Amino acid sequence: MTDPETTSTTTPSGTGLPVALDRFAAALGAANVSADPDRLREFRDPYAHPAWTDHQPAAVVAPASTAEVQEVVRIAAETGVHLWPISQGRNNGYGGPAPRLGGGVVVNLRRMNRILEIDPDLAYAVVQPGVRFFDLFEEIRRRRLPLWPSIPDLGWGSIVGNTLDYGIGFTPLGDHQARQCGMEVVLADGSVLRTGLGAMTTARTGALRKYSYGPSADGIFMQSNLGIVTEMGCWLVPEPEVYVAGDVIVERPDDLRMLIDTVRPLLLDGTIPNHPIVYNTALIAGALSDVPRSHWQSDPGPLTDAALAKMRHETDCGAWFMRFALYGPAAVVDHQQALCEQAFAKIPAARAAFRRLPGSRAVETILGQASTPPAAGPAGAVARLRQQSDSTQAGIPSLDLLEHLSWDEQGAGGHLDYSPVAPLDGRSAEDLCVFLDQSCRDVGVDFAVSLMLTPRAMIAVVSLWFATADETATRSAHQAVRSLVKLGAERGYGAYRTHLAHMDDVASTYGWNDHAALRLSERLKDVLDPHGVLAPGKQGIWPASMREPTRRPMPPLGSGTPVDGTVH
Amino acid sequence: MTDPETTSTTTPSGTGLPVALDRFAAALGAANVSADPDRLREFRDPYAHPAWTDHQPAAVVAPASTAEVQEVVRIAAETGVHLWPISQGRNNGYGGPAPRLGGGVVVNLRRMNRILEIDPDLAYAVVQPGVRFFDLFEEIRRRRLPLWPSIPDLGWGSIVGNTLDYGIGFTPLGDHQARQCGMEVVLADGSVLRTGLGAMTTARTGALRKYSYGPSADGIFMQSNLGIVTEMGCWLVPEPEVYVAGDVIVERPDDLRMLIDTVRPLLLDGTIPNHPIVYNTALIAGALSDVPRSHWQSDPGPLTDAALAKMRHETDCGAWFMRFALYGPAAVVDHQQALCEQAFAKIPAARAAFRRLPGSRAVETILGQASTPPAAGPAGAVARLRQQSDSTQAGIPSLDLLEHLSWDEQGAGGHLDYSPVAPLDGRSAEDLCVFLDQSCRDVGVDFAVSLMLTPRAMIAVVSLWFATADETATRSAHQAVRSLVKLGAERGYGAYRTHLAHMDDVASTYGWNDHAALRLSERLKDVLDPHGVLAPGKQGIWPASMREPTRRPMPPLGSGTPVDGTVH
Repeated sequence: MTDPETTSTTTPSGTGLPVALDRFAAALGAANVSADPDRLREFRDPYAHPAWTDHQPAAVVAPASTAEVQEVVRIAAETGVHLWPISQGRNNGYGGPAPRLGGGVVVNLRRMNRILEIDPDLAYAVVQPGVRFFDLFEEIRRRRLPLWPSIPDLGWGSIVGNTLDYGIGFTPLGDHQARQCGMEVVLADGSVLRTGLGAMTTARTGALRKYSYGPSADGIFMQSNLGIVTEMGCWLVPEPEVYVAGDVIVERPDDLRMLIDTVRPLLLDGTIPNHPIVYNTALIAGALSDVPRSHWQSDPGPLTDAALAKMRHETDCGAWFMRFALYGPAAVVDHQQALCEQAFAKIPAARAAFRRLPGSRAVETILGQASTPPAAGPAGAVARLRQQSDSTQAGIPSLDLLEHLSWDEQGAGGHLDYSPVAPLDGRSAEDLCVFLDQSCRDVGVDFAVSLMLTPRAMIAVVSLWFATADETATRSAHQAVRSLVKLGAERGYGAYRTHLAHMDDVASTYGWNDHAALRLSERLKDVLDPHGVLAPGKQGIWPASMREPTRRPMPPLGSGTPVDGTVH
Repeated sequence: MTDPETTSTTTPSGTGLPVALDRFAAALGAANVSADPDRLREFRDPYAHPAWTDHQPAAVVAPASTAEVQEVVRIAAETGVHLWPISQGRNNGYGGPAPRLGGGVVVNLRRMNRILEIDPDLAYAVVQPGVRFFDLFEEIRRRRLPLWPSIPDLGWGSIVGNTLDYGIGFTPLGDHQARQCGMEVVLADGSVLRTGLGAMTTARTGALRKYSYGPSADGIFMQSNLGIVTEMGCWLVPEPEVYVAGDVIVERPDDLRMLIDTVRPLLLDGTIPNHPIVYNTALIAGALSDVPRSHWQSDPGPLTDAALAKMRHETDCGAWFMRFALYGPAAVVDHQQALCEQAFAKIPAARAAFRRLPGSRAVETILGQASTPPAAGPAGAVARLRQQSDSTQAGIPSLDLLEHLSWDEQGAGGHLDYSPVAPLDGRSAEDLCVFLDQSCRDVGVDFAVSLMLTPRAMIAVVSLWFATADETATRSAHQAVRSLVKLGAERGYGAYRTHLAHMDDVASTYGWNDHAALRLSERLKDVLDPHGVLAPGKQGIWPASMREPTRRPMPPLGSGTPVDGTVH
């Protein structure tokens, strides 16, 4: 590509933006358009160093309806500015609401916050992109419907945004892409379409069955810059008769192998119907202990065995802690719990714990428990993780995990995530974690990991923590991610999501047949958005005018200058 | 469109085809290329009237590898012939292997019949398009692997072809689009790509997780003419400890409503993890009784209440018969069975039956039972349906349903299917079946239906039976489908699949915002296959040169003359 960070595109700087802003204001109202640097601060990468200007938008607009989104897209196309649509923009470890390419206009969809439908019998909802996990949960609770939404660990995100970015949840419908059903999408030419059965004007089945007739387009709008999703169907879990939140702690790092091989059959046959997470010691001690890193180790170098032993001793979280949950009729769940107990009993010194609640009282009970906080400091870490897990796995959104992220002394901790995918078998898990541990040591960052398990694959989310005020540390974290992406790809680990600054790097690792998959995305981009109005560079997909045949790595971080807001 | 049935395209007739055939023969070997009318007979619509020439291919080629498929596509593009790829081409109620547009070249992928991988631990396979359900089953059995494939009711079809055409199966992984994972696809320019994590050359996760990085392209290759799928990952079910095949019979037509409302919660919470099918009396009496229609009623007019009563009396199949199955650890399955029994006991006069087998012995036991056939004639119909269901729901392929289709006196019965989708609630099921029953009566065909249930939607497959030797009857069946498509769409029923002759009609029913979804498919077609080499007209998607702005209905059936094999 022509280095969009540092080079102007063909149109002279600024020509398009002032005109676009006037027209945006006329279409949406002046209050919903802003180029004020103070208001734009909200749309920065929250963990970027304050002095960095990469990924800085020139303006923000906030349409309130599909028609307004269409109008915004048309104005952008006509004036030559590029857009960066966000739903809530809360994927903070990956850049938050900030655009890949600086200088463009953030399309903030938070005002499109209507829950268009909730059907208690058929267990689905239809939502706009501004609807947060919190909002849907509260509406279901307000209407006393026996439905549980599937949610990720932090509840402030958009249901649509999370789904489109391949987010994962933790009820039995935690495969958020699978439980998505039917989209309304605005394309780069300002036209709008509905996917699936919703494409029949008279049909009532748009959110009930994913496949209709002809090609299924939903997938091409995920992790994509081919359209703006303005409505989405979303399946919900019926409130179970019984809910059991479980966890198992294993003591030795080497026990991971047996833990994974033990849980896989339980996932494949549906005994455990949700996505378990396996956390390592450093993750729990770092994210849930309410103490700074210096509590464990004063040396800023890699965590020593002594520090890790201290973490295990003070938190009692073991080497690995796996959470999971069971849902269903009482007798069925009781037997599933017994099967889990029998399976985990075969792992030496494994400790399994189960908390059983009637489904009809689970939500109020769990919300009530939040008022009795666990012991302060490391002694309360496991209890905090259990409270948070019990809540998330029942579809009750919270921000608990954020509140306890205390790695940085100044309380201004940021993180950057590297998220490789590996097969779900013990040997692969071991190989992956040995690789990640060693690579983190080599680049001087702590190895804190969550392994999200699906029946056949795991996604490791490595959270690199740093103090956002420390430019060197922030830069190091980015360099570490870049290194991990490259080294991981050499070993067959594909990243499923990444920070803005590494989107080209990750794209370049999917290289089969000269990047044939990326080239397909580029062909779709060229026909659906020939001028590159929508999110240029997202996931490494650039419009033709910014593309170069060789997919070279990105320039160093923090060196970028935002270009003007034009794309053609 | 420019009426491809009756009008020549721009290139003079025949220019491209002779050259193409020579080049195909040079590339694939003469034995794998044929324009011999005798050999081409195999690639006709098996239920078309013998005198009809619509959908008649000009030649067939049979590549044996991805590289040969690429070569075929390149030759077609260069010589201007159009292709109709088939995997096995067994979707007979929808036209079988015949092309939408006559005069082209069938790309017969049956020689690409390699099972590339079966992994017993991670429970998946990777297959080429020529691999039939029979083949994968036999290979798993030969290797004594504890895995069950998900299969449809007839086992002769291609795993890939069924998946791409939105086929459904009947184990817990019966959502075949969901259990598909990773594709290799040849595009119209002869290039090849891999989707998902398989796009990373080093990755071992291509068949383990569906979403990788950037847009997910798999969906656009389903019911599609945008590419030729040459490999596909496919998840398998681990052999359960216990397998229970169940069914429930309700006596009165009105009981359908309560049956559907009773089963929906059991589907939503996973108690019943597969796709049940609900059959009506006429379907069972017609497809499984081994007697001709005249046994029930000599009048060729609509089945009378007396004939339906006779069917119920002689077969004891009730007004509705629902099959389903349970899979898992013994204690869990036992409780799930008890929950089903309790639920169905609330329906007046409902009769539930359960057949329980240890998973490890289920396959051999069921295969052994096939040697002890049920009573002859109508008295054996329910037993035959149970044998067939027990087999299919355990992943054991058969052709049993074909053997008993005996509606036509001469034994030359054909069928044409209309397949609308409706919400899974009792009221909707009742409304749908009242509409279908009345509409079938109005057009003079019998109302024989299978309702395939998913947790939120049902697909009704209405099979219109006729004697293929009877041109009037065949024409009537087609006219009936055309009428049902139109009337159904007015009521919000979208068809999910259709016969070649009705592809444009069904496409025209998905009309939201001036056919925005179809227009998206057309834009993708234009960029990926600008010359319309691949399957022009499939699912109503025509290349630009054959498209007309107004999507008018098709000409009458049986009136078509195949055009020459050229597209540009």
